[in-house]
Amino acid sequence: MKKLSRRAFLYNTSLASVALGVTPATAEPAKKEIFVHHVFFWLKNPASAADRDKLVEGLKKLAKIPVLRKYYIGYPAATSRGVIDNTYSVSWLTFFNNPEEEEVYQKHPVHLGFVEEYSHLWEKVIVYDSVGPK
Amino acid sequence: MKKLSRRAFLYNTSLASVALGVTPATAEPAKKEIFVHHVFFWLKNPASAADRDKLVEGLKKLAKIPVLRKYYIGYPAATSRGVIDNTYSVSWLTFFNNPEEEEVYQKHPVHLGFVEEYSHLWEKVIVYDSVGPK
Repeated sequence: MKKLSRRAFLYNTSLASVALGVTPATAEPAKKEIFVHHVFFWLKNPASAADRDKLVEGLKKLAKIPVLRKYYIGYPAATSRGVIDNTYSVSWLTFFNNPEEEEVYQKHPVHLGFVEEYSHLWEKVIVYDSVGPK
Repeated sequence: MKKLSRRAFLYNTSLASVALGVTPATAEPAKKEIFVHHVFFWLKNPASAADRDKLVEGLKKLAKIPVLRKYYIGYPAATSRGVIDNTYSVSWLTFFNNPEEEEVYQKHPVHLGFVEEYSHLWEKVIVYDSVGPK
């Protein structure tokens, strides 16, 4: 058997997980500090699937802003314990490398255009920005 | 030059991105439906770094529950626009494969033990559960 350096072993192990979709024994912690920008939208017409889809169309435009590293568009899950707020219509969860790049996103013409074109759809927005781990 | 199959090419390209930390041209969308469970904690003593660290100690125990796919522990960013809620103390952002696995997490003895051991630290919790993309 070919002898591998420790680095090569770790590299190959990591690659095998990626390639095979192996579930790690424990969850992966975030490896370096990251900026999480999570937005919840409450629509003016929460029963309108058309309005929801229109908003999602706008979010997909935001997704093209280059500083955005990763995003998730979600809808309320069916869970309903007392501490759960499931009254929003759309969740927009985004990741940035750092606060500076999130600021670039906020001021990007595509983001300003999104607010102009789609903000008539929502009546409330709550944003949670967080950084970590520290 | 060695001729590569398409699969090998994609595999190597993906590996190169992982290995070199290359920033993709656009953000990666979530590829399959996922369950996002985002919890915000408001501490009884928000000025106490000791209480915050204690809570984080507890969250790191939760991180070992096998169904948890990925997690981020965060603190409020320095951003302060009107729609931003930065009054919480700790953000606990977690990913699960599906609602069933999140339910396993909720009922896991480590999670029940966490609530018993650490809930005296917080005065309020808000949870947002979302699923997507759809």
